[in-house]
Amino acid sequence: MSEIWYKKSMKPIGIFDSGIGGLTVLKEIQEEVPREDLVYFGDTARVPYGTKSKETITKFSLDNVRFLQNFDVKMVVVACNTAASLSLDVLKTSFSMPIIGVIEPGAKEALAATKNGRIGVIGTKATIGSGSYEACLKRLKPSLKVYSQACPLFVPFVEEGWLDGEVVTQVAKTYLEPLKTFGIDTLILGCTHYPLLSSVIRKTVGEEVSLVNSAEETAKEVRRLLTKLKAEAPRKKGNPETRFFVSDEPEQFRTLGERFLGRSITSVAKVGDYVRG
Amino acid sequence: MSEIWYKKSMKPIGIFDSGIGGLTVLKEIQEEVPREDLVYFGDTARVPYGTKSKETITKFSLDNVRFLQNFDVKMVVVACNTAASLSLDVLKTSFSMPIIGVIEPGAKEALAATKNGRIGVIGTKATIGSGSYEACLKRLKPSLKVYSQACPLFVPFVEEGWLDGEVVTQVAKTYLEPLKTFGIDTLILGCTHYPLLSSVIRKTVGEEVSLVNSAEETAKEVRRLLTKLKAEAPRKKGNPETRFFVSDEPEQFRTLGERFLGRSITSVAKVGDYVRG
Repeated sequence: MSEIWYKKSMKPIGIFDSGIGGLTVLKEIQEEVPREDLVYFGDTARVPYGTKSKETITKFSLDNVRFLQNFDVKMVVVACNTAASLSLDVLKTSFSMPIIGVIEPGAKEALAATKNGRIGVIGTKATIGSGSYEACLKRLKPSLKVYSQACPLFVPFVEEGWLDGEVVTQVAKTYLEPLKTFGIDTLILGCTHYPLLSSVIRKTVGEEVSLVNSAEETAKEVRRLLTKLKAEAPRKKGNPETRFFVSDEPEQFRTLGERFLGRSITSVAKVGDYVRG
Repeated sequence: MSEIWYKKSMKPIGIFDSGIGGLTVLKEIQEEVPREDLVYFGDTARVPYGTKSKETITKFSLDNVRFLQNFDVKMVVVACNTAASLSLDVLKTSFSMPIIGVIEPGAKEALAATKNGRIGVIGTKATIGSGSYEACLKRLKPSLKVYSQACPLFVPFVEEGWLDGEVVTQVAKTYLEPLKTFGIDTLILGCTHYPLLSSVIRKTVGEEVSLVNSAEETAKEVRRLLTKLKAEAPRKKGNPETRFFVSDEPEQFRTLGERFLGRSITSVAKVGDYVRG
């Protein structure tokens, strides 16, 4: 084992999101490559990204990767659909480490799931406006029919913990019934918040529609890339660590983050400090 | 007329908000002191403030006043209830020009409106969490009964243009019916977005409850302070100018801003440029 290889394999993987949503991706990565050290950054001071412009989202994403560089990360996962849709190209040309987004993995999973070739995509205004999923799906298979719908109220509902009930169901109907009329058999949940609304979404679109979220497939892509780069954490490494950083007050992230992660988060640091979680 | 006085009187008034909501305050200021030049800054890249911490909101507010200082403003109006609630004290000690918030004017107007001394306050999480209105009302009249309720979904609804209909009415009921049970006769709309929901709010709380928004009273306070400081724009001044600046892409601000301002906005500049509007 060469020393260079060994050193790279010991480095952590960096993950960033506009806030807490990316924790759904982190969770899958922890399950897929459990020996890896992870550094998660949530840009909670400037959240949300989904209502903002390409220029602003790109600037924020560049800041976030620069922050993760402080940890000498061996790879970066853009765990935010909006940031991945609007800024992945710029990030890839601006940094030397490998950078993975959530769009292509999600698109691949949808392609594997669809039988009739009619795929729906929901996401923030910025994600849908970018056409990122549609472009990726068409690149994978030009004959696919893709129908997109921005659902800007879904993020506030999730952040407020309104995950079911009459109001959310009514909003879901407004957004999703037009998609149903196109006969989709697969729906990409193109925002990391949306899996938390999956029971309402399922009720609205029907049991026969496959719901795809990018988290699982992104985690598999992380593993594939680690193998390809011979950068997997060695078996004899110590216990894996996950560190959480945010740009706003940590307590709200910790509380709400536990809803996303499905387990407790022991500590979160506001950027500037180093704390293990 | 001394030269110093003359120069001060010719300077513009600076107004900032986390985004577009402060345009409701700008509109009242334009009506109250129509000869004044105004510079409006909306921090659209970092909006919203209402879900964030005191520390972050204060940092953003300091940035915003520093930006307005570039225009040598004679006064600053903090047209955002959240920023005024969390950062006005720090702003006042950090800068030498007079700085006015929207909280005290709103509280005074509510005090004038109430007959039974039972006042409701609605606002963002940060505004309600700060207790700013309650503290101000109790300072004005200790015997007042104040009942507060955060309404975090109202801002997203307004920004999405969902200003009436079944869903918003249902959300309004969830937030406001508890306040009704306290027998309030006055309700402070403690967020610049909320006046756009006033018909739904009125339907929910009933015709007998006075709805107070701070914009009008804040504009009167601006006039009073200009008079006191002998800083009013002179009669022979040229046509008043209002300039709009934002931190994110200007087009969305312009379009949505017209809904708040009730008239067209000819131009908005992203910070860095100077454009007249």
